[in-house]
Amino acid sequence: MPIEAFASQNCSIARTLSIVGERWTLLVLTELFLGRRRFDEIQAERPIASNILSQRLATLVEEGIAERHRYSEHPERFEYRLTDKGRELLPVQLALLRWGDRYMAEAPGPPVESIHTECGHAFEMVPTCSHCGEEIKPKEVRAELGPGASPAQRERAKRRGERRERERERAA
Amino acid sequence: MPIEAFASQNCSIARTLSIVGERWTLLVLTELFLGRRRFDEIQAERPIASNILSQRLATLVEEGIAERHRYSEHPERFEYRLTDKGRELLPVQLALLRWGDRYMAEAPGPPVESIHTECGHAFEMVPTCSHCGEEIKPKEVRAELGPGASPAQRERAKRRGERRERERERAA
Repeated sequence: MPIEAFASQNCSIARTLSIVGERWTLLVLTELFLGRRRFDEIQAERPIASNILSQRLATLVEEGIAERHRYSEHPERFEYRLTDKGRELLPVQLALLRWGDRYMAEAPGPPVESIHTECGHAFEMVPTCSHCGEEIKPKEVRAELGPGASPAQRERAKRRGERRERERERAA
Repeated sequence: MPIEAFASQNCSIARTLSIVGERWTLLVLTELFLGRRRFDEIQAERPIASNILSQRLATLVEEGIAERHRYSEHPERFEYRLTDKGRELLPVQLALLRWGDRYMAEAPGPPVESIHTECGHAFEMVPTCSHCGEEIKPKEVRAELGPGASPAQRERAKRRGERRERERERAA
């Protein structure tokens, strides 16, 4: 179930978080990306309680992010595979990984390396611009209201701009 | 305070989530990236309770992700600015945004557009390989143990590989 307080915001980040914004959900996704698709495999890697893992997997299936496949008939057992919609969450994982490798890994280095199979090398994800192809650096991004902005969001943006203008005049 | 169950995992994604993996923390970061740095500005945009906003801002400051700056003396008022460590979280935000714009935006389109100020155009973040510069597609990534993998992680990976091998033989 999407978390209503987030799903109801007119914001693509909040809405994404309403579905996959729970820590364990994001880590269960990590496991699926790492090819560990079975309940026992995931539990062997992560200190996650069975009821939480079941719930998180059920959420991913409900939201069309993963699919349940039977891999054994006797006993009946299932594994979970990412759908295309789920695989589209790879950039979220690579971005979390990049920051963690930089700021949270211990001295020997990261515990996992990502290999780009097309070129065969370990890589770090570089965020680039879909228009010019250059790397997106944090100070080179500006937000503008998009076509889906609500009247209230437009009004607040206008008032914020006016207030900033007055502050600049007062400071000058 | 980092969440211990996540900080204690030998995984860069889990450790990142131990600090910024709470939904409101990620949305407060969104506000700071959007240039809304003041308590009142953030609360005008988001349905967030004052005590939660205070806590999340305090966490970001404690972790060196944001800094508190006084912008008014009488009355004394502070705003919050991202540090370099905080700005390095931009790819996480752009990745969440990209997925949300694709899967969660309503018919008129996204409420916010990101402009790459270097080229002047609206963009979507494209994840690329730091080695070859090509776009990273979900099926072109493989994970390998890195230098910081623990002996237990190595042992589990080995056992997993052996089991997969046996299953392939049985299926053949």
